[in-house]
Parts: sequence; C-alpha cells; structure tokens
Amino acid sequence: MNTTPALDRIRIVLSRTSHPGNIGAAARAMKTMGLKSLWLVDPLQFPSPVAQARASGADDVLSAARVVPTLRQALEGTVLAAALTARRRELGPLRTTAREAGVEIIRYAAQGEVAIVFGNETSGLSNDDVGLCALTVTIPTDPAFSSLNLGAAVQILAYEVRLAATKPETYIDARAQLASHDEIEGFYDHFVTTMTATGFHDPGNPRRLMPRVRRLFGRIRLEKEEVGILRGMLSSFRQKSDR
Amino acid sequence: MNTTPALDRIRIVLSRTSHPGNIGAAARAMKTMGLKSLWLVDPLQFPSPVAQARASGADDVLSAARVVPTLRQALEGTVLAAALTARRRELGPLRTTAREAGVEIIRYAAQGEVAIVFGNETSGLSNDDVGLCALTVTIPTDPAFSSLNLGAAVQILAYEVRLAATKPETYIDARAQLASHDEIEGFYDHFVTTMTATGFHDPGNPRRLMPRVRRLFGRIRLEKEEVGILRGMLSSFRQKSDR
Repeated sequence: MNTTPALDRIRIVLSRTSHPGNIGAAARAMKTMGLKSLWLVDPLQFPSPVAQARASGADDVLSAARVVPTLRQALEGTVLAAALTARRRELGPLRTTAREAGVEIIRYAAQGEVAIVFGNETSGLSNDDVGLCALTVTIPTDPAFSSLNLGAAVQILAYEVRLAATKPETYIDARAQLASHDEIEGFYDHFVTTMTATGFHDPGNPRRLMPRVRRLFGRIRLEKEEVGILRGMLSSFRQKSDR
Repeated sequence: MNTTPALDRIRIVLSRTSHPGNIGAAARAMKTMGLKSLWLVDPLQFPSPVAQARASGADDVLSAARVVPTLRQALEGTVLAAALTARRRELGPLRTTAREAGVEIIRYAAQGEVAIVFGNETSGLSNDDVGLCALTVTIPTDPAFSSLNLGAAVQILAYEVRLAATKPETYIDARAQLASHDEIEGFYDHFVTTMTATGFHDPGNPRRLMPRVRRLFGRIRLEKEEVGILRGMLSSFRQKSDR
C-alpha cells in the first residue's frame, strides 16, 4: 500500500536538542516508520559523527534535515503543530494521548504539512513554544518514572502516525488452506476410534473426553495439512496397537 | 489505577545482545512504562558502564536483571512467550502485530508470567528460539527500512502493554488455568518420544514435523487440564506399542 502522501507531509521538529546521538536515533526511528522530513531548531551540535553513527542507515534523513534558528520558522507552512509534553500546563492547548494524536495528525496531513515538536532532553519545551502549537501530545508513562528518551519518544509518535496512516494489518495466512467441517469431523471420528482401541477412551464411561477434545481443537481453525498430520499420527498408533 | 499486578508479571527477555548500550536503553524504556523484570540470555557484555549510562535512572532495572545462559531458562515458569520478529517464517507460531500482542500479553499476565523475547541486533532470533514461543510479534515498519533499534523495539512493546494494561475493557478470562511453558515443553518432549516409538516420527528424517506440531498447538494456548488429556492420550499409545 502506498502510504507516502500523508507520511510525507509530517515534519519531525526537534527543538534545541543537546545530544547529537538523539538526533541520529530520531532519524532512524523516523525512517523505520516511513517519515523523512526532519527539522532541527537551534541544535547544540549538528552535523555530527555521533548523530551519523546512531542514525545507522538513515543518513539520508540526516543529510536532508533543515536547520532553523527558531521554532516559528520550523512551523511555517504547516496546517497543524502538535507538541510533545510530559507535564500538564494550566492554560495550554488541547491535550491528546499519542494514540489519539496519531489519528488527528493523519487527518490533518490529508490537507497539508503537520509538525510534531519535541523539546530539549532536560528542559522540554518552553511555554511560548507550546503556545505555538494547537495540540499537546502526552505519551502515557509510569508516573513514578516518566523520563522517556528523546529518540524513544520520536519512535512512539512515528509508530502511531504510521499505524493511523495504514489500514490495520491482519496476519491471517492466506497461503494455508483451512480444513472443511467434514474433514474436521472425520478427524474427531478417527480420534474416537483410535482412543477406544488404545483404551484411553471408554465409550461406556466417556468422562466428557470428546467435548474437551472438541473444545481444544475448536479454538484454532485447523488447516487441511494439519488434519493430515493429526490423522497420520492417529494411524501410526493404530498400526502398532493392531498388531 | 493500580496496573502493577499485570505489568509486574511481564519479563523483557533480551537474547544474545551485542551492544550493552541497547541493554541500558531497554531498561530505561521498560521503566518508563512500569516494567521491571529484565532477563538477559548470554549477553556479550554485562554488566557494563555503557549500559549504566544509557539506562539513565533505570539502574534498578539493570541491577535486578537476571542473566541466564539459554532462552529455555528465561522462559521457565511463563504461561506465554512472545517473540519479536521482523521477517515472516514459513512455519512459525501465530503472528500478531504489536498492538494485538499488547492486549494478548496482558490477558495472559492475569494468569502468570509472560515473556517478550527480543533477539540479537544483527541476526535476530534463531528458528529454534522462535519455536519456543507461542506467538510472534511484528512491529509494522516501512518495508524499505525496517531496521528498528533494539531499545526502540522494546519501547514500543512496553508502550503497547502499558496501554493494554490501563485499558478498562481488556477482557480477562480467569476461569481456565493455562499450562505453563514448562508443561507445554514437557508435552512436546512426550510427543516426540511417542511418535518416534510408533514410527510416525523419524528423528533421522524429521520432515519438519515438530515445527508444524508446535505451530498447531501454539495457536491453542493449552490449558493445564488439556495438557493432561493430551499426555494421557500419548501414554495410552505408548503402552500399546510397547507390548
């Protein structure tokens, strides 16, 4: 599926980042989720070999990064700016969780550029910076230790926007052919016959064996090949016990 | 809300990690989401000042980490093991996305310990290691660049389990008691021995029987009582075929 249009309109904006390693980690996190547009507001050290090393293959994101002196410039031309914040601000913008924000950001990205803004590792974003954004985003953390690494925070937001931009993936294996009802009933019949022959099942005193076995195998959708394996297994017992 | 009970039963298992920095990043990622139990399978370098530095306040998670030589030992006593995998495996366990897995893991954690297993940075997990797990988990990434950093992957899974643990609508089935990892491995051992005795399984020419059988029963999430039934069934064959 081509999800590029919406994801291409998302800017990750890192404001006043202290550690170049975090810039590299952010670039890598972005690229894994299909984001390309990195904006750096007044970084302490950039470009940097440390950023390069941590980007680990996302060098293209780093070399295309735009460096600007103020957050206002990084937000120019956007239709929405969302600020990641840890603490509650008394008079701040609308608050959302990362999950809600992912959906909201993709909705806006249909219309134009959207910025997700991350503050300095220690001091976060100033109230003025947050005031430039229409939305604040909080990643739910343990209140006792909410110290998310900057790269990890970028990773979670990038993950949420990618999920919001793509249809939910399903992992039903299209190659495997499911067994038919008749095939499964055939297996149960085979099971009863074999178990009776080995003495494990006593039809005169069934002790709910078959309801239990049906409950067990009924929880999975058996595939054709699997019914073959199970019946092959039963046949191998039968041959021995018939001798 | 006190979400501790379920989160306390989740083990993050890092198998054969090469870079101690990633162990530190994982510890920090865990702690932000309220996870405490870190297991290290044969790490290249641990303890390490590099891990300590990257843990950045999560030193308690690092110092409580358990180091074991094999993945089997790290899974002892668990009721569910989920393996993070990037590539599709032909005959692997049931596949889920990180989001689905979060819900599933919390459901199991109501009953006992659950392990989330992460492989080596370069080589990932071996097929044998994945075979020990009942579930594989994939984090959706851009197919063109799926190279997630190990700490970032731990961050996303920890985030998903925290969200699932704090979601009030998570359905927990407390009625049936799930079989432990050890009990299920005991069943597989019993299965191989019996099948070899009946001639259905030829250890010299295994034809992928056990991966198929593991994939089948891995989808069921066997209960304690069901393992008892299956082993009783195997024993009944053995008695006949030994005659």
